[in-house]
Amino acid sequence: MNTEDLVARLSTVIGIPVVPYGEDGRIDHARTAALAARLIANGISVLTPNGNTGEFYALAPSERREVLTTVVEARTATTTIVAGVGYDVATAIDDARFAHDAGADAIMIHQPVVPYLAADGWVEYNAAIAAAVPGLGVLPYLSNPAVSGTHVARLAALAPNVVGLKYSVPDPVVFATTRARAEEAMAEERAGAGTAGEGTTGEGLLWIAGLAESYAPAYWQAGARAFTSGLVNVAPAVSLRMLAALRAGDYDEAADVWRAVRHFEDLRARDRSANNVSVVKEAMHQLGLCRREVRAPSHGLAPELAAEVTESIRPWRALVPALDATETERQPA
Amino acid sequence: MNTEDLVARLSTVIGIPVVPYGEDGRIDHARTAALAARLIANGISVLTPNGNTGEFYALAPSERREVLTTVVEARTATTTIVAGVGYDVATAIDDARFAHDAGADAIMIHQPVVPYLAADGWVEYNAAIAAAVPGLGVLPYLSNPAVSGTHVARLAALAPNVVGLKYSVPDPVVFATTRARAEEAMAEERAGAGTAGEGTTGEGLLWIAGLAESYAPAYWQAGARAFTSGLVNVAPAVSLRMLAALRAGDYDEAADVWRAVRHFEDLRARDRSANNVSVVKEAMHQLGLCRREVRAPSHGLAPELAAEVTESIRPWRALVPALDATETERQPA
Repeated sequence: MNTEDLVARLSTVIGIPVVPYGEDGRIDHARTAALAARLIANGISVLTPNGNTGEFYALAPSERREVLTTVVEARTATTTIVAGVGYDVATAIDDARFAHDAGADAIMIHQPVVPYLAADGWVEYNAAIAAAVPGLGVLPYLSNPAVSGTHVARLAALAPNVVGLKYSVPDPVVFATTRARAEEAMAEERAGAGTAGEGTTGEGLLWIAGLAESYAPAYWQAGARAFTSGLVNVAPAVSLRMLAALRAGDYDEAADVWRAVRHFEDLRARDRSANNVSVVKEAMHQLGLCRREVRAPSHGLAPELAAEVTESIRPWRALVPALDATETERQPA
Repeated sequence: MNTEDLVARLSTVIGIPVVPYGEDGRIDHARTAALAARLIANGISVLTPNGNTGEFYALAPSERREVLTTVVEARTATTTIVAGVGYDVATAIDDARFAHDAGADAIMIHQPVVPYLAADGWVEYNAAIAAAVPGLGVLPYLSNPAVSGTHVARLAALAPNVVGLKYSVPDPVVFATTRARAEEAMAEERAGAGTAGEGTTGEGLLWIAGLAESYAPAYWQAGARAFTSGLVNVAPAVSLRMLAALRAGDYDEAADVWRAVRHFEDLRARDRSANNVSVVKEAMHQLGLCRREVRAPSHGLAPELAAEVTESIRPWRALVPALDATETERQPA
């Protein structure tokens, strides 16, 4: 797929599927596949196996690959697969090459886990991984405000397969400033080179609002043209309604959706996001979609919080599609 | 080794060795061994291979094991080896078992990398790993203030081989409160059980100040009886002088050491610790101990910062021991 087509396909809701476990605590692959098929059947065209909502960091190395394979098998011709990769550079490259061979279209490179991140090191880290998979689009995950637009432009110049960014600093002004500076620096570089050159330097980057529905309206106004979503696991129609509102520039409609998801997203964000995935899985469990268990150091919800989840999904419960029973051998517990 | 002996041995400076790379970017094992031998010869009796100063998160899985093996081979009879382990539970258990078989005395379990940490999940995470290596002492790394003393006591009750904690929340009052509540809850449990029982529940935990020399005096006053150190890689005598002052209750002397290391430790802490390890390696490079390179997303220092490092080590430069030339085949670049 060329860069232009890939960016067009990624300019939508980027769904981050949960990973359901069986009673034995192992990954339930039949249900993983059924849930992916349900998302696809309900209009979600981009899936990111091994994102944070997929408990990326709680999976063993072999499990990460198995999840990717399962989701790739569930895709249709119009589905775009963005595989999450991360950890040290060598591990990220191994997983990126595996993703390429498994049929992924792009990788999302998680924020490095090294606690001592220098902005120039962030550029090097992502450039090294991107260089190992020239046939894949690359979306670095950026959650550190020390990485400026100048650094982003430098990365884009080094790595022509970097087609966009998942941007997750919770400040729309920092986002707008970073994006403006990056696009400016990339334009300067094009002007200096006297040619549009190849790859993204000639096209601009796709900026993805990486903090889901709550932040999507603010970031869309500042130039984001896609957003990631964990809520999509529960109600894809809600995420798509937000997307349609933003595309139409209908901020009243976007604000309506925002109000409808606020309680749910607030439960996920509370206590430093302690229950970010637990809330999604609790909702899915209540709706008969999968088991509620999460892996340590995440933890299931206390009964009061589970009751709050019930409340929070009430406004859009009617929009929750069922799981196609033919697609999985057994019903959720 | 029984718990009492292990705790006695751990109640000191816990050195976190750097991992030096060769010109080709691969780990220089000869120098890793020589640097470990130098620390041991200069009075450092506890080493933690695969700690943060050892760029744990930038090493590939096989490299983590190789570093551990190299440091274990450099030990003497009085050296205690605490192997850093982390990531998902399955990976941490694999690495912990490897550490046991390699001859480590204990493991330090890094703060989980999962961004969605619930306090109960933190207990489960550490308990699961500790249970897999009953023959090793276990030191969880605690840097999240949501984990209370009650949670720590619950972990100690579940995992009798948890002998202490590396405590890294940068607030001495939170530390004192957490420690007091944990010791209280453990005493209540002993009283309830009517017996001292086995393991640490009968002994209390070793609280390790996990934020190095700068924070050690404040945490010592609140009950810490050990501290971790990266500075030890440069000048073990400085760390040992701090230890002696704290043991003697000589806070004037401790304050003298504190002032002497402040500039160096401040350089490490600046910009969200971007250059935490880079500063240590830059100093070591200037002193002829090893190459200065760090791995991405860390990054080498700009010349102005490197010059500041020179300034910062001036007060104790005379205390820096040489590397024994017989212990490594080649001199640092």
